[in-house]
Amino acid sequence: MQCANEWSCISETGCDCTPFSSWAAVCTLAHILADTMTDSQTDGAATESPMEFYEKLTAQGEAVKALKTGKAPKEEIDVAVKLLLQLKLDYKRVSGHDYKAGCPPTDSPASGESVPAAAEDGDDLVDPWTVATSNAKGIDYEKLIVRFGSSKIEAELIERMERVTGQKAHRFLRRGIFFSHRDMHQILDAYENKKSFYLYTGRGPSSEAMHMGHLIPFIFTKWLQDVFDIPLVIQLTDDEKYLWKDLTLEDCHRYAVENAKDIIACGFDVNKTFIFSDLDYMGMSSGFYRNVVKIQKHVTFNQVKGIFGFTDSDCIGKISFPAIQAAPSFSTSFPQIFNGRKDIQCLIPCAIDQDPYFRMTRDVAPRIGYPKPALLHSTFFPALQGAQTKMSASDPNSSIFLTDTAKQIKNKINKHAFSGGRDTIEEHRKHGGDADVDVSFMYLTFFLEDDEKLEQIRQDYTSGALLTGELKKCLIETLQPMITQHQERRKQVTDETVKQFMTPRKLDFHF
Amino acid sequence: MQCANEWSCISETGCDCTPFSSWAAVCTLAHILADTMTDSQTDGAATESPMEFYEKLTAQGEAVKALKTGKAPKEEIDVAVKLLLQLKLDYKRVSGHDYKAGCPPTDSPASGESVPAAAEDGDDLVDPWTVATSNAKGIDYEKLIVRFGSSKIEAELIERMERVTGQKAHRFLRRGIFFSHRDMHQILDAYENKKSFYLYTGRGPSSEAMHMGHLIPFIFTKWLQDVFDIPLVIQLTDDEKYLWKDLTLEDCHRYAVENAKDIIACGFDVNKTFIFSDLDYMGMSSGFYRNVVKIQKHVTFNQVKGIFGFTDSDCIGKISFPAIQAAPSFSTSFPQIFNGRKDIQCLIPCAIDQDPYFRMTRDVAPRIGYPKPALLHSTFFPALQGAQTKMSASDPNSSIFLTDTAKQIKNKINKHAFSGGRDTIEEHRKHGGDADVDVSFMYLTFFLEDDEKLEQIRQDYTSGALLTGELKKCLIETLQPMITQHQERRKQVTDETVKQFMTPRKLDFHF
Repeated sequence: MQCANEWSCISETGCDCTPFSSWAAVCTLAHILADTMTDSQTDGAATESPMEFYEKLTAQGEAVKALKTGKAPKEEIDVAVKLLLQLKLDYKRVSGHDYKAGCPPTDSPASGESVPAAAEDGDDLVDPWTVATSNAKGIDYEKLIVRFGSSKIEAELIERMERVTGQKAHRFLRRGIFFSHRDMHQILDAYENKKSFYLYTGRGPSSEAMHMGHLIPFIFTKWLQDVFDIPLVIQLTDDEKYLWKDLTLEDCHRYAVENAKDIIACGFDVNKTFIFSDLDYMGMSSGFYRNVVKIQKHVTFNQVKGIFGFTDSDCIGKISFPAIQAAPSFSTSFPQIFNGRKDIQCLIPCAIDQDPYFRMTRDVAPRIGYPKPALLHSTFFPALQGAQTKMSASDPNSSIFLTDTAKQIKNKINKHAFSGGRDTIEEHRKHGGDADVDVSFMYLTFFLEDDEKLEQIRQDYTSGALLTGELKKCLIETLQPMITQHQERRKQVTDETVKQFMTPRKLDFHF
Repeated sequence: MQCANEWSCISETGCDCTPFSSWAAVCTLAHILADTMTDSQTDGAATESPMEFYEKLTAQGEAVKALKTGKAPKEEIDVAVKLLLQLKLDYKRVSGHDYKAGCPPTDSPASGESVPAAAEDGDDLVDPWTVATSNAKGIDYEKLIVRFGSSKIEAELIERMERVTGQKAHRFLRRGIFFSHRDMHQILDAYENKKSFYLYTGRGPSSEAMHMGHLIPFIFTKWLQDVFDIPLVIQLTDDEKYLWKDLTLEDCHRYAVENAKDIIACGFDVNKTFIFSDLDYMGMSSGFYRNVVKIQKHVTFNQVKGIFGFTDSDCIGKISFPAIQAAPSFSTSFPQIFNGRKDIQCLIPCAIDQDPYFRMTRDVAPRIGYPKPALLHSTFFPALQGAQTKMSASDPNSSIFLTDTAKQIKNKINKHAFSGGRDTIEEHRKHGGDADVDVSFMYLTFFLEDDEKLEQIRQDYTSGALLTGELKKCLIETLQPMITQHQERRKQVTDETVKQFMTPRKLDFHF
């Protein structure tokens, strides 16, 4: 009995996850941070007693100890520790005390106002900086939509988009990769009525290296820009990365400029697109800081504590940063583009983990006289090791980088891409593979344009006709030319081109 | 027995203070907000138990109730309520619980780290937004110096300044109005060694109307600029006023520009002075926001909570604002003036209530590679009603405005200036007046240049030879021409001049 070479990747990942119920099950999102704003729904929230938190916390403390004793991988320990810290925070909120091992809470809870509004029904963590799960029950995006108070992108909305724009929906829409929205019908109304709106998306430049997952919002935004023919602003939060990471201001700014090259290589039109570094643009705009201050006046520490989980030990830069990511949602942040008009609505395509920023933004908007931004939310792009977490630039083995060579891409996929196949070729032929948990198949869902071919692959893999090695080969052959082409386009991006994109200026639209 | 007309002001103020022990005793500063930074001294701090705070808090609650029932003046109630809120905050810090009337604290205090470091030995309040006392024991500036960790301006320092600069010390120095400093000897060393430094002061533009008290730092800064011949930057914190007050951004900015005219009328040299509105300059400088973010990364919410008394209900704009007042202390915030040099030390003349900002700044400076700013601290400029609080633009009767007519000045002084005289002329002649509590005499100390004449007035008033009416007349005759001249100079300040001062540009210094 022969074990196909490529199966070995399963044991090499050090990952012991069980299969998900759906390919789209990128990660279980049970621990959703509290949404204290009016825009969301918190009715599903189950408040727990201090004692329940105390017991959870004690158990998690033991779990961390066990992981450390067992010399578990650093990543796993980090996730467990982050969970522990989150639980400590929650415990303090509901009990009014710091957690002390061996000292269960008394029956004097703190005043009700600070009880977290979010439900906890698992041990998972999702915020704009971390996506991680320690169990693998499978994601429930439907539940997430209910909890975030957003709306599902139904077939009917996709059909309307196609009808209104006269364009076939992007594969990210057809395949549920962009799965949730806020006020997208309002945007389509505006489009039908020839009312202006604009696109806003962004990136946190934490390193020079961007990976494939980073491209998702940009690929989709490029498509939206082509379809709607509207202005686009792209924020590079170099200030955020400086505040959160152990990096110098100069490095963060340099990463922003380097990342801009990869973004430009996605094919954006320089006449319709403004890319900006926060560190630069804050010092170049008469509108940006004014909007930041307006937002900062209308959001309290209690609110950002609830939404983002900040604590008293966080620096004041982190605490006030959400206003800086919020501000580009308002057209007055770009007087050079919108000629001072404050009524131009914004549409934000982003991964769902960025939604907390924009729930906050939508809560503030009417109070400062601006329209609420609309949103299109995507799922996370899974790590090579499996959908328990998203691709991360800080873990090279979890990611295919835009700088990887054809050979590196081949090796990474063959070696690390979590497989839904069986242990032996014989078993695979007999029982078939599980496309729903197979990372190679997931990646094809993101990048293989041909619907029929994708469906054929799914059927063949599920039936056992297609082996994991063959599936991986198909992915490799899809990604290699894609990345090579990206690298070639990036080479064409000169410093002069970057400068053009990043210069505050009027775009080819008249307001 | 005849009661001189002007004495009546005593009963009209609604103020029942007892005489201070010294004219300089502007206000009792017992409740100094905590200084958690390394730059200060907290060894004198007496930590109190939750029960002690609970009892204080209960008593203060009763006091507020009594004031409200008794329909006390709004100002008095406001002070009492602010004290109550501060006590609640302190109580929560030491007990870990919110205060509940009738529920004394249990014996489970929160973790020690958040116990306030400041001593409480009275019911007074001083922070950058409020200076108020409900008792009148008289100020102890010496104690304040110890508690803030600053240094007294000794005769020896004044002599050194005169020796080094070859100029007679300004009356504000001779008379102890600027009474405290940090690192002034270091500045004089720099001056002797021909090393560069620069001046930074500022103003919060909360209304168009500036009063005489607002001029103190500018009069002194102008003198420093003349003596040292160095660049000066003046910050107008229109963003701060927007965050703290119920004002629009547009109003705050307009006030900034109007206030700039009064500041310019003090006689600053446009070739050596840069005046800026935060709202404008943040969007015009490649250096300012970068320094703001650097500072914001190195200060936690715990720290600003300790220094400024912020709470979880404060907006994130207030919480992060201290970094914006701190940033001009670093020369890289003005690349157009200092050519990118980061080693130019800053000297900040300001009222002592602004010191919390700069204690924070001095704590952060070495951690981000910048020199600590040096400081010169002034006392508060007393309200007409007496030295229990400082002159406030929001209470017209407490202030002489720079827009007041000669007649208004005369009437305000005659009607409102708290007098240290006796109830009748006969008693006054017999026992003499108390110059130390007499507001008219205090004002003369600020504005009458002639030392001998001032001393003569003090002696005559104390002996009874000079009546209150005569003292007030002397003050009126000092202020009227001073204000008239100011108004004439202000009229000369055109919009073009303001624009010149407020344009980021190189000054007449080479770096």
